[in-house]
Amino acid sequence: MRLFDRAVVRVLPAVPRGVVRRVAAPYIAGETLEDARRVVKQLNAAGICATVDVLGEDVSRPEEAEAIARAYHDALAAIEAERLDANVSIKLTGFGLELDKALCRSLVEALVEDAATRGIFVRIDMEDSSTTDDTLDLYRALRAAGRDNVGVVLQAALRRTLDDIATLADLRPSVRLCKGIYVEPASLAFTDYETVRANYVKALRALTATASHVAIATHDEWLIEQSLRALPPSYEFQMLLGVREERATQLVREGHTLRVYVPFGEHWYRYSLRRLQENPAMAGTIARASVGRLLGRSQ
Amino acid sequence: MRLFDRAVVRVLPAVPRGVVRRVAAPYIAGETLEDARRVVKQLNAAGICATVDVLGEDVSRPEEAEAIARAYHDALAAIEAERLDANVSIKLTGFGLELDKALCRSLVEALVEDAATRGIFVRIDMEDSSTTDDTLDLYRALRAAGRDNVGVVLQAALRRTLDDIATLADLRPSVRLCKGIYVEPASLAFTDYETVRANYVKALRALTATASHVAIATHDEWLIEQSLRALPPSYEFQMLLGVREERATQLVREGHTLRVYVPFGEHWYRYSLRRLQENPAMAGTIARASVGRLLGRSQ
Repeated sequence: MRLFDRAVVRVLPAVPRGVVRRVAAPYIAGETLEDARRVVKQLNAAGICATVDVLGEDVSRPEEAEAIARAYHDALAAIEAERLDANVSIKLTGFGLELDKALCRSLVEALVEDAATRGIFVRIDMEDSSTTDDTLDLYRALRAAGRDNVGVVLQAALRRTLDDIATLADLRPSVRLCKGIYVEPASLAFTDYETVRANYVKALRALTATASHVAIATHDEWLIEQSLRALPPSYEFQMLLGVREERATQLVREGHTLRVYVPFGEHWYRYSLRRLQENPAMAGTIARASVGRLLGRSQ
Repeated sequence: MRLFDRAVVRVLPAVPRGVVRRVAAPYIAGETLEDARRVVKQLNAAGICATVDVLGEDVSRPEEAEAIARAYHDALAAIEAERLDANVSIKLTGFGLELDKALCRSLVEALVEDAATRGIFVRIDMEDSSTTDDTLDLYRALRAAGRDNVGVVLQAALRRTLDDIATLADLRPSVRLCKGIYVEPASLAFTDYETVRANYVKALRALTATASHVAIATHDEWLIEQSLRALPPSYEFQMLLGVREERATQLVREGHTLRVYVPFGEHWYRYSLRRLQENPAMAGTIARASVGRLLGRSQ
């Protein structure tokens, strides 16, 4: 199987582009932001959230990196305008990492800032092992600058990943964990399928103790089942309409699911009594209002 | 404080309805479904999901229970039509529990079935301790009938709650945990504030081991912080567009957050190669398509 995989990798560049495009069609939303918007809406309608990726990597000219950055700003605007349940994923080589590090950094900083003002999260994808250090360095710099709407990706295939988890722990990072698809030398990566899987489970356990959010990115049924076992039940916070709204917003900002109880209807009286009963601070307000009303009546 | 609370409870029914209405206004969406729809949209736009409650409890005539059930069916239709990120919460006494158990059960069964066809979850609220057994019995009956879009509420104030968690464990229930607002006798409930808090933390730990989903319903900062510590990081599953869509739907149905990677843009080629590389089953398709194309060219 493994040999067969490698054979496929070698032969792929020889496959005509038209064939690649046709066979890969189910994996790509389309060429335009409108295509992405349509697909995200369909996913959201099915209760699934999305991360939007403007395709583009290993750019060779600054203008290409700038064009990709612009496309991401447009994507952020669309996500906000249409209230899509989506964040974005970026590839640093698409922002010019291997061309001009300073350009890459300034484009990413501007994007993360734009996303922050719109309340959108930015996931920095991980590429091949030549980019790992630069990617983690930029992530740390963004967090040091106070940006917390940003996260990284770690790859279970890399031998360094458990160390990276330990090194990042002080940041309580948001981490997407994937196996890693790039072809890497055996000195840097596990090449054995079962070892990668075992390392994925180890990394997931480590992240459970140190990360603020773990995105379990895998299609491997065995890993999905291991993850479901390693994880606690899903959870959400719940609050009542009108109560502690700032704390609610903060929990959402920190990545927790929050559900607010929205009561309505003509039978509002008994529910209202319980809300007032629950809030002793209301007692004064009620007392004053009641006295005012009673005084008003007695006049 | 506790004495003061009880004084407020005693005095509340004497407060004029107009005053109650005015002071409780922030806690209620309004009188109509349109009011609820508007409030849920606002919450959703802020990244907050909702549970919609048609107010009404302790009905005295079957027609009232039927009217409340109808209002819930309308709410389900609105949630589906407008793709609101919302479920519903129902009170069994509003569905006639204390009037006619058979009527209550049939109305709830019909509602849960309607919700299931629309992919919406139904939370059965818990009321005072006189309803606990009936509520848990109906929940078990619904689950036995194969309904899994339904959950219950347990109250940390009740002495029986840890036992109830153990009894429900076989169902891997979805549970909302709250303190409990109803005034109960000391034989059934803890009345000491700190004991209720401590029992909440115990119940949350127990649920972490047995529940499929825990909704942490509290506005108590100390409890929120204890919960954040007791919980692992938040998590989500992630998959690529076009890959394992059935498994994705299943994870969402089971209450997990799932994010799908939505790539788009003109630079689709390298991403496509990785997707094909990752899917050895594609090798045959590609080989056939390529050969077809090459044969086509050579003609």
